[in-house]
Parts: sequence; C-alpha cells; structure tokens
Amino acid sequence: MRRLYHYWFCPFSRKMRVALKEKGLDVKLELELPWTRRHDFLVLNPAGTVPVLVEEDGTAICGTYALMEYLEESVPAPALLGETSQDKAETRRLVDWFDHKFYEEVTSLIVTEKVMKRFLRLGTPEAANIRYAAHNIKHHLKYIEYLTDRRNWLAGDEFSYADISAAAHLSCVDYLGDVPWQDFEGAKNWYARVKSRPSFQPLLKDLIAGLAPSPHYRDLDF
Amino acid sequence: MRRLYHYWFCPFSRKMRVALKEKGLDVKLELELPWTRRHDFLVLNPAGTVPVLVEEDGTAICGTYALMEYLEESVPAPALLGETSQDKAETRRLVDWFDHKFYEEVTSLIVTEKVMKRFLRLGTPEAANIRYAAHNIKHHLKYIEYLTDRRNWLAGDEFSYADISAAAHLSCVDYLGDVPWQDFEGAKNWYARVKSRPSFQPLLKDLIAGLAPSPHYRDLDF
Repeated sequence: MRRLYHYWFCPFSRKMRVALKEKGLDVKLELELPWTRRHDFLVLNPAGTVPVLVEEDGTAICGTYALMEYLEESVPAPALLGETSQDKAETRRLVDWFDHKFYEEVTSLIVTEKVMKRFLRLGTPEAANIRYAAHNIKHHLKYIEYLTDRRNWLAGDEFSYADISAAAHLSCVDYLGDVPWQDFEGAKNWYARVKSRPSFQPLLKDLIAGLAPSPHYRDLDF
Repeated sequence: MRRLYHYWFCPFSRKMRVALKEKGLDVKLELELPWTRRHDFLVLNPAGTVPVLVEEDGTAICGTYALMEYLEESVPAPALLGETSQDKAETRRLVDWFDHKFYEEVTSLIVTEKVMKRFLRLGTPEAANIRYAAHNIKHHLKYIEYLTDRRNWLAGDEFSYADISAAAHLSCVDYLGDVPWQDFEGAKNWYARVKSRPSFQPLLKDLIAGLAPSPHYRDLDF
C-alpha cells in the first residue's frame, strides 16, 4: 500500500491526509519526526521535511507542492484545484496564502511555542510570539469571512485545495484551542462545513500523546 | 501588453522574468515596492507580494506558485516543469527547495540585511545573519554540484524551473557579491550555462539605483 510520511502537527501533512481521502486513495500513515533527521528518511527526501508519499513501486513524491500537483494529475476527479485556468490560479493563490502567509504568521509560531518547545524541551513558550499569532489569526479569519461572504467555498463554487489548506492549518491551531471562533461566526460556519466532510474525520480523531486536544476540537457542532 | 509587477531583489520576480522569456512571451515590467502596501496593488493581490502578472484582459495571476503553473498550462512549450509525472515531481521538489529552503537560509537573510535595511533605513546589517547565510550557501552550492555531477541540469536532462529558481535566488546574492564561486567549480559551471541563456540576459543588465552590482555579476566568464 502507498505510504504517507507525516507528522501530527505538520499542517502540510494534514492537508495531504485530507486530499488523499478526497481523491479516494488509501494510504498507510508513517509517523516521521523530521527534527531527528533519520538517515533513511533523508535518502527519500534530502530536504528532510514531511509530507512524503511513497508509491508501491518506491517512487517518492516530496513536499506538499509536488504532492498536491502530482495527485491532481494522477487522479483528476474530484478536481481539487479547479477546472479552468483562472479557477486554478485562484486556488493556488489561496493555497500560497495559507501555506506561507498563514503558516509564518500563525501556525509556525503557535506550534513552535506550544508543541515543539515542549516536546524538544527547548524551554518555556515565548508569550510575545503567542500574542503575535493571536493577533494575526484575526486578520486571517476575517479574510475567510470576506471570501465566504462572496463564494460558496474559499476559491469559488467548489470545495478545493484552498479550503483544505486553510482548514489544515486551522486544525493544528484549533487542537491547541487557539482559534477565537466566537468572534468569527462566518469563518466558524465555513470550518464546520469542512469538519463535517468524511475526508476530515481522521484528523478529528488525532490524539497526540502527552497533549490532549481542546474540548471542542472534535465537535462538529462547536 | 501583459504586465509583470516585480521588484529587483525579489527572487520570485526574477524567476518569472526568466520563465516568461523562455516561453517567448513579452511583458512590460512594472516596478512595485511591496512594503509601501499601495492600495491599487493590494486590490490586484491582497497578499501584497510580487510577482503578479496582469493579462491584457485584466486577469491577475498572483504569486510565483500560481504563475509558474499558469504559464506551463497556457504555454506548454518549451516544457519547464518536465514531461512525465515523475519529472514534474522532481522539478517541483527542487523548486520548493530553492524557493523555501534556500530562500529562508540564504536569500532572505542576505537581501534583508544588505538591501532592505539600507533602503528602508532600518539600521546597520546584522553581521550574524550574514555569517549564517554565508555558511548555509555552501551546503546549497554543494547540493547543486551533487545534482549536476549526475544530471545535465538540476532536475534531469532538460533545463527546467528547478534551474530557473536556483539561478534566480543565486543572482540576487551574486549581485551583492556573496556567492563563493571559487570554491564550487561545478556549481559555477552550471551557473555559467544558465547565465549564457538569452532568457537570463535582461537580469544581468539590472542596475539598481544606489547599489552597484559586484564586478563579476554581468560576466559570462566569471
């Protein structure tokens, strides 16, 4: 069976777990701790990052960018990037937004301070970074509301990689209880719709040893 | 005529300038200073980043990821992502390497310290960051040599976006004279081949006001 090397708090891995389910592909999850720089894993992906998909013939597809595009080319339906050239450009613009802008301004700060520092015993979380992320996330939730006020899903009429990327990042932060849903009804309604998709259920069952999810993390009605 | 909003020291803009030439497309360059957060530009691209391509009908394609894929779909020849699914995955893996790993470990540090701090009067460059980038770039040059020892171009037999991305980042650093070519003959030979392509010539003519290029920046035989 094809294997996906992933890490629980890696939003890019989470994104690919959802995308594989949307495409109807079964995959065996292999937990990888990228910071250990395991030799056999570096042979698969010299960058040492997750996610990496390994096909049954041994072909390795490394990184979320290569992997998203590879999946869309090899299993075109359901389309997760959009149908027309302009739809695709819009989906990719928003994927970029969440995978880079949101990641740098929110996910990476929260996960580094609250998860990595704890597991790697790197000292106490830096309160200023958490405050900075808490400030930034509001702008992103507002942007999600701006988009969903005008569209059915983030990039247009159809559910796409834009929704998957945004929800994957938010799910990492939500596990830790750091999404102020109460102030963003529109974003919350959109996330509830993503959360109720069958492809998202496995993520909601995640239970990371030593770190319980926030009380509402699993609730479809939160 | 189609327009490309770009900034001289933005490696992603440089990459798209080269790619557009490789695809045989003419474009009018529009200089954008992203940090000014100009209103009309934010309407085009809410992320406020360059590059953005605006087609004659007004369609805006935002960001290097959307733009690379859009160009490849709309002008398939010459292929810059590769032909087979595996070729494409390899090109995209390496694009990711240079656009994120190299960018964070080298380009961003050097450009922030040596260019942005100067132009935005943010104080003197932080020597530690420059030293860190100087250390990191050696590993990347070694990786370029590892690849070109085994392949004609970085991702395989053909010139691709992997070469364009790597060379775009290196050209920013090389403008400032911070690439230790003398210690990396193989990487230098590969870069000389990229530099001699017609698509790369406009970049070599760049002359940024107030900041002269390093003496060998323009030389094809450096």
